[in-house]
Amino acid sequence: MNTSTHTAAGPAAVNDTPGDSPAELSAYGELVALFKRLHQLEHLQSLAYWDQAAMMPPGSAEARAGALAEVAALMHQLRTDPALPALMARAEVEPLADAQRANLREIGREWRAANALPPALVQRSQWASSRCEFAWRSQRPANDWAGFLPNFREVVAVAREEAALLSQSTGQRPYDALMDRFEPGMTCAQLDPLFADLRQWLPGLIQQVQKRQQREAVIEPVGPFPVENQRRLCLQLMTRLGFDFERGRLDVSTHPFAGGVPEDVRLTTRYETHEFITSLYGAIHETGHGRYEQMRPRGELGQPVSQARSMGIHESQSLSFELQLGRHPGFVAQLAPMIRSAFGEQPAFATDNLQRLVTRVSPGLIRVDADELTYAPHVMLRYDIERRLIEREVEPDDVPTLWDAGMAELLGQDTRGNHRDGAMQDVHWPSGMFGYFPCYTLGAMYAAQWFAAMRRDLPELDADIHAGNLAPLFGWLEQHIWHPASRWPTAELALRASGEALNPAHYRAHLEARYNA
Amino acid sequence: MNTSTHTAAGPAAVNDTPGDSPAELSAYGELVALFKRLHQLEHLQSLAYWDQAAMMPPGSAEARAGALAEVAALMHQLRTDPALPALMARAEVEPLADAQRANLREIGREWRAANALPPALVQRSQWASSRCEFAWRSQRPANDWAGFLPNFREVVAVAREEAALLSQSTGQRPYDALMDRFEPGMTCAQLDPLFADLRQWLPGLIQQVQKRQQREAVIEPVGPFPVENQRRLCLQLMTRLGFDFERGRLDVSTHPFAGGVPEDVRLTTRYETHEFITSLYGAIHETGHGRYEQMRPRGELGQPVSQARSMGIHESQSLSFELQLGRHPGFVAQLAPMIRSAFGEQPAFATDNLQRLVTRVSPGLIRVDADELTYAPHVMLRYDIERRLIEREVEPDDVPTLWDAGMAELLGQDTRGNHRDGAMQDVHWPSGMFGYFPCYTLGAMYAAQWFAAMRRDLPELDADIHAGNLAPLFGWLEQHIWHPASRWPTAELALRASGEALNPAHYRAHLEARYNA
Repeated sequence: MNTSTHTAAGPAAVNDTPGDSPAELSAYGELVALFKRLHQLEHLQSLAYWDQAAMMPPGSAEARAGALAEVAALMHQLRTDPALPALMARAEVEPLADAQRANLREIGREWRAANALPPALVQRSQWASSRCEFAWRSQRPANDWAGFLPNFREVVAVAREEAALLSQSTGQRPYDALMDRFEPGMTCAQLDPLFADLRQWLPGLIQQVQKRQQREAVIEPVGPFPVENQRRLCLQLMTRLGFDFERGRLDVSTHPFAGGVPEDVRLTTRYETHEFITSLYGAIHETGHGRYEQMRPRGELGQPVSQARSMGIHESQSLSFELQLGRHPGFVAQLAPMIRSAFGEQPAFATDNLQRLVTRVSPGLIRVDADELTYAPHVMLRYDIERRLIEREVEPDDVPTLWDAGMAELLGQDTRGNHRDGAMQDVHWPSGMFGYFPCYTLGAMYAAQWFAAMRRDLPELDADIHAGNLAPLFGWLEQHIWHPASRWPTAELALRASGEALNPAHYRAHLEARYNA
Repeated sequence: MNTSTHTAAGPAAVNDTPGDSPAELSAYGELVALFKRLHQLEHLQSLAYWDQAAMMPPGSAEARAGALAEVAALMHQLRTDPALPALMARAEVEPLADAQRANLREIGREWRAANALPPALVQRSQWASSRCEFAWRSQRPANDWAGFLPNFREVVAVAREEAALLSQSTGQRPYDALMDRFEPGMTCAQLDPLFADLRQWLPGLIQQVQKRQQREAVIEPVGPFPVENQRRLCLQLMTRLGFDFERGRLDVSTHPFAGGVPEDVRLTTRYETHEFITSLYGAIHETGHGRYEQMRPRGELGQPVSQARSMGIHESQSLSFELQLGRHPGFVAQLAPMIRSAFGEQPAFATDNLQRLVTRVSPGLIRVDADELTYAPHVMLRYDIERRLIEREVEPDDVPTLWDAGMAELLGQDTRGNHRDGAMQDVHWPSGMFGYFPCYTLGAMYAAQWFAAMRRDLPELDADIHAGNLAPLFGWLEQHIWHPASRWPTAELALRASGEALNPAHYRAHLEARYNA
């Protein structure tokens, strides 16, 4: 399919109501108005979350939790309004444009997600994960698996109930039903062969690259790197990456994230004076998320059809920025003088050396610190364990044994007794987010696929990147990913963007090309 | 009345419901629950306002306006719920503790305020003032009175309608009905003699002090004063003034304000490198507002009885800090070494010279820049004109003539043709806030009265201030102003705190003692 056939729905196409009289709203028009209200509440909600992470004084936590619970309850009330099914049914038979019909499809998705589970179970789930996550914050540094386990058992028990109920009503496999909240349409049946394939070639590639890199001389940058200089460098780079500071900010938080709303995107990073590459590439990563958010179709904001397609597609944007573009030799060549101007001349800041620094492969214990090659094994292990947990093949008590075996096999790491840097390292499980982890590697695969398609559509792409001309790259992403948003199901989005559904061959080809160079 | 009879309502006394069964709420309990919800929404609302002024990128203004309109509509919906009158009537006959009855009285006040005007008029009023204020932002710098006038006529016309309607339903004088929104219970009948009295002696005092100060040598501080040093000085001083940074922040905005909620107070100031006294005393002023907010009774937050008593009482706290304490020679003596440590030694930073700097009297055109002695004349002129505007004695077209005459008489200033620094200098009129201005001078009078009462209750007060021991002072304010909040009507609050209702003699005595020293 030729990508030029894509015509994104304009605002009018989605928001205009099919009825003749503007005073009397069609059923579709009423639904659009409802989701506009939800968007306003989401604005307040996301601002409060951002503030909580980046600005809020510690003593305000309880009051903030109350305010967030209130707005969540209001939003839930709007999404579970008993009048909605009849409205949706009436809208189905109204004369709608294609884009409006896509919006109605996504409205249905949101409605099903909000109404799928009995309120009592939703509440139990929130309680179980709140308790587990709160205790985890101190249990993790204390390496206290025994203390963590009882709370975690409850989180898993509730998630299994949720998965079973969702599975009954949708016919999905239980784990698929949970994954659907983050990656609509993705299934274990699709994922398993993807990951089985990775397992075939990735460990070998990692060893091979490590062996080659052992012979490479890499010069370490010498700090300190003052926070203010790092901040200015991040802002400068974000501007070059097209982030719109008229509609967004960069601040500091313990765990970097992209938050806010499309009209006001709030990114965070964090700075350590002994090292600057993490904050820099963190900012590049979040800028990828941020541009996707800022470029979602403006006239339709609040409408489900304008939402980001999925977490995997969202990660495909952050990773397009951080990995595909950010570690591209042409981009690193642009970056080098900026780094020298921020911190002064150093042998480590030669372009070749910087390139080696940002592509060094080194298996380790921590997922968020993993390099481009060793990241996927962390995800594969999480997926393997969490799917079996949800589908009752293993128990929470089995996790450390499974973890140790998996890390030994996939990354050659000894993790015995180290729960802190093992299964307890991430917030996802304590907070009950089963089904999220695969999105990271799906994002990396999609990003490789976008760049392969881009090279076909834009023969000058690599030369442009070397020349610092990023406009064609951003134009491609805007046309194929950002502007379409949720206009099509994920598989069709990929097909229209790249001519094929998810194809992991591009990921392998990218890694082999970059790391066997 | 002895102040020691004061026993503030504990949280339980207000929030506990009179019914026996916790499952079935009494009418009073339902009202309490409603105001708890309103408090959560107010949390989100005030955060969004703070962010708008201190953090928000400019391109997000429209989305923010939509989100703020949404939360305002939700709050209005809760406050105008048709079920409320019956609930309030049922609660009236329930067995309530005194503190609960006070809360019910204040709930009635809030309900009347929210339901007093027909929605169409409220909307017209919001539109008229939004349009006028928005245009004013560029008309003021352009000195464009002719452009301002048509919008302002509409703002006045709507305010007159509001005042007339309120007057009909409450029996209040029209201007009193508007002032009641900011200063419950205050009337022109009380204000007129207060201001008439000021007019007798204040202009004479100003002239006399100016004459004496002409002979004084005052050394100007020499800048620049780096922003970061000013910020650290402000934070240090705020800590000394008891501001709780676990539940609040200090940031920067164009127009300094105290915002947020009691659990998370957000103060702002602004810095100019050529001058530091404005930002410093601005921070002291806002800290007074901030401590009142932080110290409102914690268990009752959200309940109307825990609200600040009035804008005049709120200003009495900021002015207790900025004027009574902040310009107290003992406090200035404490401040001097902090200033020297922030900016280095200068002849201007000698305690005596600093004292002269912060008590210099100099009539000028701008209210917010006015010194302690010349501030009230600005307010008297505003009050005189706005009362006559609302009560149809004068027209918007007459304002410049009235302004010129008033400024010439009260402060000897020639303002002819200078609308920008004349009637157009403040946001209150363009935004329809008629009845607010008197609160500033009422606040200054109450602050003087509190300190007179404090000196009676705490004979060591001045020695304590000289010694840097501010705990007794704060303890007095906590007991008599902060903790009582809206437990009693303003007149009774003053009586319990100081043994008498508002008595302007303390204000005069304070000014004469300080400025004729």
